[in-house]
Amino acid sequence: MTGDSPSGLTHIDSRGNARMVDVSAKPATPRRATAQGSVRMRPATLELITGGEVGKGDVLGVARVAAIMAAKRTGELIPLCHPLGLDSVTVDFSPAPPDRILISATAALVGRTGVEMEALTAVSIAALTIYDMCKAADKEMVIGESWLAAKTGGRSGDFRHPSPPA
Amino acid sequence: MTGDSPSGLTHIDSRGNARMVDVSAKPATPRRATAQGSVRMRPATLELITGGEVGKGDVLGVARVAAIMAAKRTGELIPLCHPLGLDSVTVDFSPAPPDRILISATAALVGRTGVEMEALTAVSIAALTIYDMCKAADKEMVIGESWLAAKTGGRSGDFRHPSPPA
Amino acid sequence: MTGDSPSGLTHIDSRGNARMVDVSAKPATPRRATAQGSVRMRPATLELITGGEVGKGDVLGVARVAAIMAAKRTGELIPLCHPLGLDSVTVDFSPAPPDRILISATAALVGRTGVEMEALTAVSIAALTIYDMCKAADKEMVIGESWLAAKTGGRSGDFRHPSPPA
Amino acid sequence: MTGDSPSGLTHIDSRGNARMVDVSAKPATPRRATAQGSVRMRPATLELITGGEVGKGDVLGVARVAAIMAAKRTGELIPLCHPLGLDSVTVDFSPAPPDRILISATAALVGRTGVEMEALTAVSIAALTIYDMCKAADKEMVIGESWLAAKTGGRSGDFRHPSPPA
Amino acid sequence: MTGDSPSGLTHIDSRGNARMVDVSAKPATPRRATAQGSVRMRPATLELITGGEVGKGDVLGVARVAAIMAAKRTGELIPLCHPLGLDSVTVDFSPAPPDRILISATAALVGRTGVEMEALTAVSIAALTIYDMCKAADKEMVIGESWLAAKTGGRSGDFRHPSPPA
Amino acid sequence: MTGDSPSGLTHIDSRGNARMVDVSAKPATPRRATAQGSVRMRPATLELITGGEVGKGDVLGVARVAAIMAAKRTGELIPLCHPLGLDSVTVDFSPAPPDRILISATAALVGRTGVEMEALTAVSIAALTIYDMCKAADKEMVIGESWLAAKTGGRSGDFRHPSPPA
Repeated sequence: MTGDSPSGLTHIDSRGNARMVDVSAKPATPRRATAQGSVRMRPATLELITGGEVGKGDVLGVARVAAIMAAKRTGELIPLCHPLGLDSVTVDFSPAPPDRILISATAALVGRTGVEMEALTAVSIAALTIYDMCKAADKEMVIGESWLAAKTGGRSGDFRHPSPPA
Repeated sequence: MTGDSPSGLTHIDSRGNARMVDVSAKPATPRRATAQGSVRMRPATLELITGGEVGKGDVLGVARVAAIMAAKRTGELIPLCHPLGLDSVTVDFSPAPPDRILISATAALVGRTGVEMEALTAVSIAALTIYDMCKAADKEMVIGESWLAAKTGGRSGDFRHPSPPA
Repeated sequence: MTGDSPSGLTHIDSRGNARMVDVSAKPATPRRATAQGSVRMRPATLELITGGEVGKGDVLGVARVAAIMAAKRTGELIPLCHPLGLDSVTVDFSPAPPDRILISATAALVGRTGVEMEALTAVSIAALTIYDMCKAADKEMVIGESWLAAKTGGRSGDFRHPSPPA
Repeated sequence: MTGDSPSGLTHIDSRGNARMVDVSAKPATPRRATAQGSVRMRPATLELITGGEVGKGDVLGVARVAAIMAAKRTGELIPLCHPLGLDSVTVDFSPAPPDRILISATAALVGRTGVEMEALTAVSIAALTIYDMCKAADKEMVIGESWLAAKTGGRSGDFRHPSPPA
Repeated sequence: MTGDSPSGLTHIDSRGNARMVDVSAKPATPRRATAQGSVRMRPATLELITGGEVGKGDVLGVARVAAIMAAKRTGELIPLCHPLGLDSVTVDFSPAPPDRILISATAALVGRTGVEMEALTAVSIAALTIYDMCKAADKEMVIGESWLAAKTGGRSGDFRHPSPPA
Repeated sequence: MTGDSPSGLTHIDSRGNARMVDVSAKPATPRRATAQGSVRMRPATLELITGGEVGKGDVLGVARVAAIMAAKRTGELIPLCHPLGLDSVTVDFSPAPPDRILISATAALVGRTGVEMEALTAVSIAALTIYDMCKAADKEMVIGESWLAAKTGGRSGDFRHPSPPA
């Protein structure tokens, strides 16, 4: 019904229409993906998040929950993503003084398609949540670049980003 | 019940607990916010999106729909955001050859709280959707920095980012 | 940012891009819309739904709940619909022997935009739910035509469909 | 816990109560379903959608995305549907001048239950989205009949509608 | 369209059908509601949550986020609840040694209908989240009774539960 | 990436951070769980629900649908729950005059993790829906205790609550 795309974009069929790629003939195999990103902010804002007595860690705790929950809903947000029953999501934050928080998210499942988008979505929602919780103090924060750091499993084989931004 | 936060973070109360800030005493006024971002990719990937005969514009069309739909669901994704009845969302893309697509999203409503997060969420989901639709051709794409470009309305007054990243 | 559409389609801007129309300058006024539809089935299937001792009315009871819940989520399903805080939804069913069930849904709110889509969505989901609950007995059911029967309120004034299908 | 239904409706148990049928003992097998439908409109409205220079194809592009996304959420909308991890969704439109657009949607997965409802939901939401995007120009549009055209896989075997409406 | 219910249940119309009550004629006024509940567990489980070095407070932090997010989605979960744009949600936990955690949630908005269900939903989801996070250590936990402790605003006036369970 | 938790709480990693436990190495096996709960109310309220001519059974019918639908969305509500493709959900109500309705919910699937939370969530949402539909008549209702009554399947083996509250 939908032939191979001459465009090289699998999500577009031979007539130029968007589609959810058929993965039903692929075997269910273990897959894992890690994405990375960051939020850049004033040094004083970073201290509010990481150094204070009150609310210590709470911004990152809320952002972690938001990221895990969003990863589970990736298929609702990204139109052509397959809905997936994720087997694992972890989200880690590393303060990088004086002005950044690094974000890393890893998703895994046994399934017919990869979990790159789940890991990337987790990073994006974590960054947006940090922005939201700190924006009263600092509207000039910048959500940093994000990328697929690594993936394993699936027909296209393992991948490690050859030139990660930072 | 929840006093002012000594941390300077309004989403954290005086005991360090996350909360959804009470805006019920604020008047409903017109608010508008614009966020910006980008996706960086190989020049050949940019051509697939913008230059081909087949599927011309379709990647960006799908990303625009995803962004608009996600903006409406910001309150479900970002834990302490107020649920808002958005009055407007627009999303614009500008190819920036040889290797970038710029993304701009604007949200507006008449309400008790701002729509910065809705505009930023639209930018992030647009970028993630572009990544998803092109990842079979280019896994090394990088979702670029994103930021609040401008906002109007609300008690804190108008804002324009003094040093946007690009 | 997005001029009037030469296409006559308000959801498409002057450059041909989809958008959520800006309604922030419109006043919040009372609006109401009624949509109608039907499901056509074998007479024996209609009897299962309406005439039996066991489960009497239950198919329609479930369909009514599904329709009301879907009306509330119209803004999540229809990409360019505004998210609305509905003030009322009612759904009515009328068996039309020998082979049809008629569906009518009415939505209302005080708001800046109409509720036609909410009423139409309620009718569609009611019909789909009836199909789902009866499909083990009758896969040949047909979800009938549906249309906006009437609306009141809003700048475009009152409307009553001049030639409803049935 | 819930015996066979004397009503012949599998979604109703022996006491007349709604339930989600237990499919855990069924094997996961390949399944596919195609549903069809249409939207009927004024000829001038059909031309706005298919013939113009500006926004050409955009209404159908948005409707396709909405349909694919809704198919993935069928289990949230239809109360007794099983939540499914769809492996594929495609949506096709065919203008049928002078006054109709035909809609066809196909869903597939390897699973324990069929995907008829996913295909039918995709058709309904596609039709509703077309209605929404054109309603400023034509409120008298009629969402046409829709039906299960064909299904393959599953214990009940293959099915092709013997008397499709049009 | 739907008359007063002889049953005394406003969510059931005069023909016995469920409906979402029409509140469009009511004024938007400030409303606030507080609900309370608890989780009962082994003393050792309570210590894991409140007393340890590792993960101190994290269970309650996650439960608070879950409760706030669920309060915002009450209208999606409870079929006949109106969808509301909450202006505030706060959730508080008080360990009650040796074996209980008390939960209190308060919701507020300016609107046409009350927020009792939002407060009660927050309490329930907080309790379920605590159960989920501790169930590997203690499957015998009991989610305690919950109730509307107080509400203010709305036509029915202020309310304080005259005989709260504990 | 995340070691065993010294806290005994699997949802907290060795650094005290919340995570979604990795179940990808576990086999998919049949699992089933039953939870129980209740709603306590005035005898007159119980009669409104169970004894009248008008709307007989409708409150419980709506609550059953709400509970089944919520069970399917457990993974969206409870932050660290795995998203699951439930194979079965049933919900039963038993009036316990003079003042209680007992609720029992059973969920089942073939999967890598248990369905305790799905059963408990169904019970909670059923109770909240009953409260919502009767609150105009009786604001003093109390949502009763709820607990995991039994589970089968999974590595930790079968479980039956040794001391259920009632």
